[in-house]
Amino acid sequence: MSKACTLAIDAMGGDHGPDVTIPAALSALRKHPELDLILVGDQAILERGITAARANHETRLRVHPASEVVTMDDPPAQALRYKKDSSMRVAIDLVKSGQAHACVSAGNTGALMATARYVLKTLPGIDRPAICTTIPCIGGRFRMLDLGANVDCDAEHLFQFAVMGSVLVEASGDSDRPRVGLLNLGEEAIKGNDQVKHAAQLLQDSDLHYVGYVEGDRMFRNVADLVVCDGFVGNVALKSSEGVAAMISRFLREEFHRNLLTRLAGLVALPVLKALRSRLDHRRYNGASLLGLRGVVVKSHGSADAFAFEQAIETGLLEAHEDIPGRIDNRLGEVFAQEPSS
Amino acid sequence: MSKACTLAIDAMGGDHGPDVTIPAALSALRKHPELDLILVGDQAILERGITAARANHETRLRVHPASEVVTMDDPPAQALRYKKDSSMRVAIDLVKSGQAHACVSAGNTGALMATARYVLKTLPGIDRPAICTTIPCIGGRFRMLDLGANVDCDAEHLFQFAVMGSVLVEASGDSDRPRVGLLNLGEEAIKGNDQVKHAAQLLQDSDLHYVGYVEGDRMFRNVADLVVCDGFVGNVALKSSEGVAAMISRFLREEFHRNLLTRLAGLVALPVLKALRSRLDHRRYNGASLLGLRGVVVKSHGSADAFAFEQAIETGLLEAHEDIPGRIDNRLGEVFAQEPSS
Repeated sequence: MSKACTLAIDAMGGDHGPDVTIPAALSALRKHPELDLILVGDQAILERGITAARANHETRLRVHPASEVVTMDDPPAQALRYKKDSSMRVAIDLVKSGQAHACVSAGNTGALMATARYVLKTLPGIDRPAICTTIPCIGGRFRMLDLGANVDCDAEHLFQFAVMGSVLVEASGDSDRPRVGLLNLGEEAIKGNDQVKHAAQLLQDSDLHYVGYVEGDRMFRNVADLVVCDGFVGNVALKSSEGVAAMISRFLREEFHRNLLTRLAGLVALPVLKALRSRLDHRRYNGASLLGLRGVVVKSHGSADAFAFEQAIETGLLEAHEDIPGRIDNRLGEVFAQEPSS
Repeated sequence: MSKACTLAIDAMGGDHGPDVTIPAALSALRKHPELDLILVGDQAILERGITAARANHETRLRVHPASEVVTMDDPPAQALRYKKDSSMRVAIDLVKSGQAHACVSAGNTGALMATARYVLKTLPGIDRPAICTTIPCIGGRFRMLDLGANVDCDAEHLFQFAVMGSVLVEASGDSDRPRVGLLNLGEEAIKGNDQVKHAAQLLQDSDLHYVGYVEGDRMFRNVADLVVCDGFVGNVALKSSEGVAAMISRFLREEFHRNLLTRLAGLVALPVLKALRSRLDHRRYNGASLLGLRGVVVKSHGSADAFAFEQAIETGLLEAHEDIPGRIDNRLGEVFAQEPSS
C-alpha cells in the first residue's frame, strides 16, 4: 500500500471529539507514510489539540474549518438541512470534491448515512446503502450487513447487499471467493419470510458463492465470510451479541472477585484473561463501512477511544486504496449484464 | 405447590428420547410429591427403561402407548396429518382430553406447534401462539417472545405476545408488574419498522407496564422483564446470543490450554470457571412455553440432557399449577373489555 491517500476526518464527531480523533490521526500517520489526513472541525480547538500533542510540524496533517457539529441527538433530516457547515458534512463534501479519498466519522449514524447519501449519491443499481461491519468468530472473522440503515428490505435489496459485501470481503484479502450466507431462523428451505426466501433464489441464480441460510449461532462458527440480513435483524443480532459478551465479561469479573481465594486465582489467571480480553476486544473491529455510495465513508462507534478510532481510519484507508466504490460499481455492471431480467 | 398435577411427557422426542426423558421424569417425581407423570411412547422400550432404572414400583409414573415418533426432519404438516399415533400427538391429546394438565416435548418445534395448535386450539382473541423462553441477564433474568413461531407479525400480534408474556412473568413470581419492552434497533421514537411503532402505541395505550424500546445489548442489562419481538428477530437474537456465548467459552478454553503455565493457571482458576459455567448454563433455562393455546405445552431443546429436560418438566409443572392458559384468557378478556375498539 504505497499509493498516496488522503482521508477527511470528522474531528468533532463522536462522544469524545478531538480528544480521540487527534491522537488516533497522529498514530495512523506514524504507521502509514502514504497517508495524508484532513481534520475537519473547529479550527482553534483542533490547532490547540495538535499543538498540545506537539504535532504542529506534521506536514501530512492539516485542519479544514467547519463551524458546526452534528450532535448524537440531531435528527438526520435536520442535520442535513440545517447544519451545512458541520464537521461531518464538510468531511463528506471533501470526498465529493475529490480532495479526500475517504471520510471517517464517529458521529450520529443516521445523520452520517443521510448526509453521505445526499452528497455522494448511491451507485447505479443500488437502491439503498447498507452498513457493514466485521465480527470475530471461531477460527476467523466474518462481515455482516445491513446493520441498521434499512429496516425493511426486499429480496433485491438483500441481493445488492450480498454483491457489495462480497466485494469488500475480497478486497480485504479475507477470501477470494467469499461464502455468502443469508441470516435466517432455520437452515431448511421452507424457513424464513418471503423476502429471505426470494433473496435465496436470487443468490442461487447468481455467480456469488452462496452457501445457504445461516442461523444466528452458526455464524460464529465460521460458516460464511459474509452474512446478509435486513437492517433490523442485523442490528438486533449485532447488539445482542455485544450484550451477551458484556454480560459474560461482567460475570467473569464478579466470580473472580467473590472472595480472597478467587481473587488470588484471578491474579494467577490474569495473563490468560488479558489474552481473552484482547481477542474479544471490539475496538479492534471498529469501523463500519457505508457501502453502495459513490465514495468511501466509514462510521466509527460513537464511544470509540483513540485505539478504536484508529482502526476506523485503517478501514477507510483500505477501502480508499482498494477503491471499493469503483469495484462495487464494476461488479454491479457484471451482475446486471448477466441478469438482464432484473 | 401441593395441588396434584399430571404431566404427559413425549418420551420419544428429542435427540436422545427415553435415555433422557426417563431419568428426567424420575428425578422430577422425587422432587415433587404432588406430581404424576405419563410417559408417552413405545411401551416396550419405555417399560424396559423404567425397569432398568429400578423404578417399576413408582406408582406416580405410568406408560401410555404411542406407536410412532415425529422425527426432527418431519415437516410439521406431514407430522400432523400422517403421524396421528406419535408420542408427541398422543401426549397433546392427553392434555386435550383432560387426562394431563400439561405436555412436555423435546421434539421437532414446528411439528409440536402445528399439532398443539390443531389439537388444543388457540385462546379467544389470540391469532397465533408464540414461543417464550427465559434468558439470563445481569442482575436477573428476562423472558422473550416470539422465538420463531411467527416470522411475520403485525402490531396486534406483538401486542398479544406482550399480554401473554406478562401473565407468564407474573405467574412465575419474577415481577408483580412486569416491565414490557419492544425489541428495536434504537430507543428513539422514530426508530423501527411500522409494526413495531404501531405496537408501541398499542402498548402505551394499554394498562401493561410498557417501558419502551429495548436494544439488543440493553436487554442483557435487566431493563425489561419481558422483551417482545417477531419470531424472526427473536430467533436470530436468541441464537446469536448462544453463538457468542459458545465462542467466548471456546476462546476461554483455548487460552487456558495454550501452554503449561496457562494450564496451571486454569487449574487454580477451575472453581471460578466452574461457577461461571454454572451461571451461564443454558440447561437451567431449558423449557420454552407455547403461549396462546388452550392448554400448557412446553418445548424442551432437542439436544437436552436429563438435567435440562427436567427443567422443562419444572416449567410445565409451574404453568399447569398456575393455569397459565386460564390466566391469559382472563387477562385477554380484561384487555378487550377495556379496548372495545380493538
